[in-house]
Amino acid sequence: MASFGMIKDFQVKTNRTFLDRAAALEPVLHKKTIAAGGIVTVHNIMTDGRQETVVRPFADLSQLADMRFQRGDKVIFDFGDHQVGYVSFQAVPTGSHYDAPAYIRLTFAEAANELLEDSDAYDGWLSKSWIQEEVLHLDLLPDTVKLPRRYAFRYMQIEVLDTSPKYALKFCDISCESVSAVEMEQVKPLCFGDERYDNIDRISVKTLKDCMQKVFEDGVKRDRRLWLGDLRLQARANYVTFQNYDMVKRCLYLFAGMTFADGRIGACFFHEPEFCVDDTYLMDYALLFGPVLWDYYEATGDADTLRELYPQAMSQIDICMDTMLDENYVVIDQGDAFWCFLDWGKGLNKQAGAQAVLLYAMRYGICLAKAMGDSSRMRQLQDQTETLKQAAVEAFWDERLQMFVSGSERQVSWASQVWMILAHVFDRDKSRELILHTRQVNPEVRMVTPYMYHHYLDALIWCGEKELALEEMDRYWGGMIKAGADTFWEVYNPDNRYESPYGSTLVNSYCHAWSCTPTYLLRRFYKDGKYDDARS
Amino acid sequence: MASFGMIKDFQVKTNRTFLDRAAALEPVLHKKTIAAGGIVTVHNIMTDGRQETVVRPFADLSQLADMRFQRGDKVIFDFGDHQVGYVSFQAVPTGSHYDAPAYIRLTFAEAANELLEDSDAYDGWLSKSWIQEEVLHLDLLPDTVKLPRRYAFRYMQIEVLDTSPKYALKFCDISCESVSAVEMEQVKPLCFGDERYDNIDRISVKTLKDCMQKVFEDGVKRDRRLWLGDLRLQARANYVTFQNYDMVKRCLYLFAGMTFADGRIGACFFHEPEFCVDDTYLMDYALLFGPVLWDYYEATGDADTLRELYPQAMSQIDICMDTMLDENYVVIDQGDAFWCFLDWGKGLNKQAGAQAVLLYAMRYGICLAKAMGDSSRMRQLQDQTETLKQAAVEAFWDERLQMFVSGSERQVSWASQVWMILAHVFDRDKSRELILHTRQVNPEVRMVTPYMYHHYLDALIWCGEKELALEEMDRYWGGMIKAGADTFWEVYNPDNRYESPYGSTLVNSYCHAWSCTPTYLLRRFYKDGKYDDARS
Repeated sequence: MASFGMIKDFQVKTNRTFLDRAAALEPVLHKKTIAAGGIVTVHNIMTDGRQETVVRPFADLSQLADMRFQRGDKVIFDFGDHQVGYVSFQAVPTGSHYDAPAYIRLTFAEAANELLEDSDAYDGWLSKSWIQEEVLHLDLLPDTVKLPRRYAFRYMQIEVLDTSPKYALKFCDISCESVSAVEMEQVKPLCFGDERYDNIDRISVKTLKDCMQKVFEDGVKRDRRLWLGDLRLQARANYVTFQNYDMVKRCLYLFAGMTFADGRIGACFFHEPEFCVDDTYLMDYALLFGPVLWDYYEATGDADTLRELYPQAMSQIDICMDTMLDENYVVIDQGDAFWCFLDWGKGLNKQAGAQAVLLYAMRYGICLAKAMGDSSRMRQLQDQTETLKQAAVEAFWDERLQMFVSGSERQVSWASQVWMILAHVFDRDKSRELILHTRQVNPEVRMVTPYMYHHYLDALIWCGEKELALEEMDRYWGGMIKAGADTFWEVYNPDNRYESPYGSTLVNSYCHAWSCTPTYLLRRFYKDGKYDDARS
Repeated sequence: MASFGMIKDFQVKTNRTFLDRAAALEPVLHKKTIAAGGIVTVHNIMTDGRQETVVRPFADLSQLADMRFQRGDKVIFDFGDHQVGYVSFQAVPTGSHYDAPAYIRLTFAEAANELLEDSDAYDGWLSKSWIQEEVLHLDLLPDTVKLPRRYAFRYMQIEVLDTSPKYALKFCDISCESVSAVEMEQVKPLCFGDERYDNIDRISVKTLKDCMQKVFEDGVKRDRRLWLGDLRLQARANYVTFQNYDMVKRCLYLFAGMTFADGRIGACFFHEPEFCVDDTYLMDYALLFGPVLWDYYEATGDADTLRELYPQAMSQIDICMDTMLDENYVVIDQGDAFWCFLDWGKGLNKQAGAQAVLLYAMRYGICLAKAMGDSSRMRQLQDQTETLKQAAVEAFWDERLQMFVSGSERQVSWASQVWMILAHVFDRDKSRELILHTRQVNPEVRMVTPYMYHHYLDALIWCGEKELALEEMDRYWGGMIKAGADTFWEVYNPDNRYESPYGSTLVNSYCHAWSCTPTYLLRRFYKDGKYDDARS
């Protein structure tokens, strides 16, 4: 199912001052040259009836000098860890004087399985252009190939499509100038007392770091854009690690600097070639602008930014109250349209979840109003919250099932329960009962993305199930590590390693920032056992 | 059959002075911006049981502004004539803000049929890298795409491999900066009194012009190198047209400036990235260095160059006399090795032809020695000529067949007859009988390339069959025009439009300088009917 929004004759409202603030905060990227570490082979094998991709060492990099490549020969370089950057290498002819250009195909893979898939056969709905392949002619040899495009990868394959019968190619000096707005050394490793969580934390921080570029990118292989829902999680992880407050501020001003003409904040923002809001509105993402602003204010005490952006945060709630509710204060279901995100996954009904996110945003709205001294607005929101909570229970709570349902077909999903808990529709005890009951029932409409799993863990922690949250973190994020993750993924289904929302894992993103939150949860809620109510 | 020479541990001898002279003569290329002329479609149709590629107008270029391209869409631009140069165009997104790179494949075709062939299926022995295709990602849009590689083409296809569901591409400002060391305007069109020959002359001149770049290139799509056998014909056509004497001089000094360590002149020379002789020796090509030098001296009177290069011209003959002959003064057959060119085509035995080229070179050697006042050498060559002619007749003339044979299997080919005539083994009358007899018998081992056809016409003219030569020129070169040639081709078999010596027409070259000689023959031998004996 293709999921995207698109608006004909899209009109925007620009606040030049805000965009200028964002522009002034553009980070200077750190650059680090990383050499390829070794030469490997990649194979699919069957283990217990399941296909698995394995990477095997093939040769030491010192042996590369003796290797010759002609038509059809391939070599895979392993950079040892996930890289985001600009690749260069030397291609040197050997044999007779080269009498034809060299013709090579480069393939970059975050996960080794990408190397074994047939990109020509790709027929998913996401653009093929995201597949990290290049076909190059080298007319003058020897050549120092410096690729102008940025890639996200651990493995780089060079396939020689052809030289000529008279010469072969050698390769040397394979390296990547890796880039990020931050450096791993800025963050002190976690000492959790359990290696599993230290590893999960380390990989979370690496995932976040790789996605911190000119903005918080959602994924560095694909999409490479600033999404509001992702920003919220990245910012939270950033506060307990790199503490790059300017990048959050920049992103807040971007979203506020160009909105839909009616004031709605877009779900996603382009920063290249010039600033531009995408014509995609997602109700939950727009509502999360307020929580992002609150988190930022809480982390920095930057009252100027709070004051400037407060009106827009509040208006996202107002717009939803005015346009998205029926006469019973229940969010109107918009079915299969791309109107509210919550999670990928087939057939998830968003109605109940959207109501919950609205309530969640209103709680943060109250915090914002309080900080602004806007007591009338605070009271108004408090009243509205009660109304909407009641409406939520009436519309979605199924007494027989003891779970929330969503949509006209009364769908029971994990997402609806989790978000209703995070919305504090019930108190902590009843919420705890609900999440434990949900685990027992295990509704068929499951969670797919780390984005949704984060909210599940957040809900467990709020309910006081911190041990269980740790177990689930190990099962899910630890499961990715066992499956070979160097950075955390966009999509992970423990039951189906090769799940993709796009019709092909070739375009899955394997360093996706919305999966970086274990570092936030571990560092925020576990160090001294303290739990801050307002935060979840 | 793959045909190429290759020498392990190849050693060269360099004359720095000569290479410096060549470097100083590097031409400055003329540049001319040519806009695409129209939009066409290309189809294969069956006509009288033969496949034919037809080009049909599809749209006016002014309609391009209304065209939108997404995944799988293609457009073919017709530049109206053969171009050699650097292409640029604008790619502009339309629809929502582009949310993925644009991904396009460009295909350049000298002949329209190249657009219908499957380059992935190419399995010929020449490098795939010559196929004029590029696959590009455009990360920032709109983009002015300036392709850094030079292409030879009339048709340019853009295939959009993907945009995204949210946007399409538009294209505009499709143009080519065409380059050459010379300009068509420098040459006065021929007025032969018969449009057929005016056309053949014009296309000959265009072919030559397009191949005059930093050196005389053999073909501008593929190979793009200086070959000695080709140089001889290009230089002759150049003397009656552009009269760019410096380019001939530059090429002579290149060949003389770096030779095999034993003094043999290479068949081919690389001028990029630095000067380097190829490790290919072709006996006939090396021997033709003398005739090229003589033609140059005759055209320019440049006695300094003659004096400097005379020793190397003569030594090519000496080397052959010393190393390539058996005790009966007959060239030793080297079978299927790539040792003597004469023509492409399967199974042509080169022994008789090589003997003839040696005799041909000796005749020019006598001219050179005479001009140098080297009378002892002149007499020696005259004596050797008689000996070798006698040996040629004894070894190769078949009295019963009344034709020359070649090799241990006594092969009868067109090439052997033509070169024996050009070698003046027989006098003009007997040569005329031979060529007419050959036409009647039509030996199975035919001529394939315009290079060989040129020598056939040259032989006809020398035999006094100037009308017949014109008829054959019209049949062969006129035939290419009827088949759609904008410039003359590397290979043309009137009986098989799709013949290729490389296993696929995809790598055939459709602007190949060795086919430019009709302008030489028409302007040299037909204007006033004069025929210069020494020249053929």
